[in-house]
Amino acid sequence: MGINQKDRLFQEINQQPAVAEELINQEFGKIETIVNEINGDFDYVLIAARGSSDNAARYAQYLFGLNNQLQVALATPSLFTLYSSSPQLHKALVISISQSGMSPDIIQIIKNANQQKCKTICITNNADSPLANESDFTIPIYAGEEKAVAATKSYSASLVALAMLSAALAKDKNFQAQIQHIPTYLKTTIESALEKVDQVQRYRYIENCAVLGRGLNYATAFEVALKVKELTGINAIPYSSADFRHGPIATVYRGFPVFVIAPKGKVFGDMQQMFNDLKTLQAETISISNDDKILANSNLGFRIPTEIPETLSPVVSAIPGQFFGRQLAIEKGLNPDKPEGLHKVTETI
Amino acid sequence: MGINQKDRLFQEINQQPAVAEELINQEFGKIETIVNEINGDFDYVLIAARGSSDNAARYAQYLFGLNNQLQVALATPSLFTLYSSSPQLHKALVISISQSGMSPDIIQIIKNANQQKCKTICITNNADSPLANESDFTIPIYAGEEKAVAATKSYSASLVALAMLSAALAKDKNFQAQIQHIPTYLKTTIESALEKVDQVQRYRYIENCAVLGRGLNYATAFEVALKVKELTGINAIPYSSADFRHGPIATVYRGFPVFVIAPKGKVFGDMQQMFNDLKTLQAETISISNDDKILANSNLGFRIPTEIPETLSPVVSAIPGQFFGRQLAIEKGLNPDKPEGLHKVTETI
Repeated sequence: MGINQKDRLFQEINQQPAVAEELINQEFGKIETIVNEINGDFDYVLIAARGSSDNAARYAQYLFGLNNQLQVALATPSLFTLYSSSPQLHKALVISISQSGMSPDIIQIIKNANQQKCKTICITNNADSPLANESDFTIPIYAGEEKAVAATKSYSASLVALAMLSAALAKDKNFQAQIQHIPTYLKTTIESALEKVDQVQRYRYIENCAVLGRGLNYATAFEVALKVKELTGINAIPYSSADFRHGPIATVYRGFPVFVIAPKGKVFGDMQQMFNDLKTLQAETISISNDDKILANSNLGFRIPTEIPETLSPVVSAIPGQFFGRQLAIEKGLNPDKPEGLHKVTETI
Repeated sequence: MGINQKDRLFQEINQQPAVAEELINQEFGKIETIVNEINGDFDYVLIAARGSSDNAARYAQYLFGLNNQLQVALATPSLFTLYSSSPQLHKALVISISQSGMSPDIIQIIKNANQQKCKTICITNNADSPLANESDFTIPIYAGEEKAVAATKSYSASLVALAMLSAALAKDKNFQAQIQHIPTYLKTTIESALEKVDQVQRYRYIENCAVLGRGLNYATAFEVALKVKELTGINAIPYSSADFRHGPIATVYRGFPVFVIAPKGKVFGDMQQMFNDLKTLQAETISISNDDKILANSNLGFRIPTEIPETLSPVVSAIPGQFFGRQLAIEKGLNPDKPEGLHKVTETI
């Protein structure tokens, strides 16, 4: 099968249900306490993050917009560092997301936010990190040590933390109940993906691919593309399906591989239309969906749970991308734990 | 030379100095009036845009942050359309940028902003458009009809409008004086680029490239990548140099073509370091810079004016990308005015 179960990446991908379960068990109540202390004293949310954590921030843009009617801005770190210029943040709630809690640029943003008396929350895998120490509140994500260079469990755990924060801010008991199902959703998605990894060898010689998502799963498009890029060196490009129509669709030729992230929900109709257009263009389609027809009509279809609400679908829909990236690395003779040219913690200023 | 001066794209690229001159002459005073009427009654800026206009919005994120200490959020249109959910915008100044003024999703955002009593400004090439009619204030960009599918003069004109707005908001006479030099900067950049287009044939067979910028020229990285993608079908991927180090640098191999946008200024040191690292990796470097050493050490170097302030460099630094995309289309036997699979106005919801 080409699966070497001894690699760390494989183990860490499979740890995601357990990590989510511990995070939910440990932090649900604490996050409600944080929300009570902040007491709604902000007009919008600013999120500071890099890499996979920045993809988690994209999820929050849509989730907080939908569930909490909050406008979310993504911070531009170089403004705070290279340009030494902090915007006036007025009544922003400032959230940082960082696995290591070590990135100097993110720390600088939180320092500026503190000077401006903004409330700050840190979502991190290291509750003793400089970033956590600078922040008013810390939400640890319980991912344990992440040894593989490509982030997997810390990504899904960050999404779970954001979902719990959104539910607490909205005091939404229904969404809180749905979040309790996440460990099961993750487990089912992993099992389904494992049945398909053999077929990844089909992509041994691709050099490019596009990854399309929209709305809540715009984040997933970025995260899947990042995993494929990091692990295999292939030029995987993420797009919103809307932006893709604005221009890059010109790059699609017969056999061009395109990931289509199409969970049932409000953006499904739009993604289905894009899927049909890609079939007309004779693109190669790799779908991540819970729609039987899309899965059946794809060259490779990864199933996510049928009953998952769209608002939580991003927590599971990156998993097929994690397995795809890992398996393709193996097929290409690369080490999935240590992609060439990368380090685990990148300290940018 | 392979230059067919009869194509519309070539004409429109060359019209940029004249468009900027008319825009500056016609609108400087009017923009000051708009700013006086708005009277600082906002806490942050939300910008709604798609495609090239969204790249103009990225410029505003940095420019308004630097010159006006304003936090800028980029709107997520699908929240307002597919999800029918408008975030609470509180005291946001909402700016839309759209060449055609016809995009239904952008119009929907402005309608929501009006319902929430936000002040709205529209930057458009069509002052009679539905988008302009919905907005409190309109800044026309005087680009005239743009017939080529790839946006060029409407892009630089949108940047000029944003620069004038920033200068008016800051009441910054020095920056206003610098803006008056833009037509000359554009002209010089076009002349320099024309001397280099013959060398573009070197890239006839590339299939991928990366485009790196940071800070103010993060926008330029996106716009240059979009031009190359639209006009040639090549997978051109934009990155901030910081994000590139976080992972995608793993995709660089000997001869891999990378655009490096490196104007003198606050991010120059960072871009210079990236340039040196790329040389070590034996990448093929295409630079857009006003630094003699970077230009001399690049495989292909496009010069921008030496004296241009970094805050205005994005207005000119997309031009080499426009010429590059056009010339490469010609070398590949494609029609630069009508890239395959694209339409001028894409109506997304």
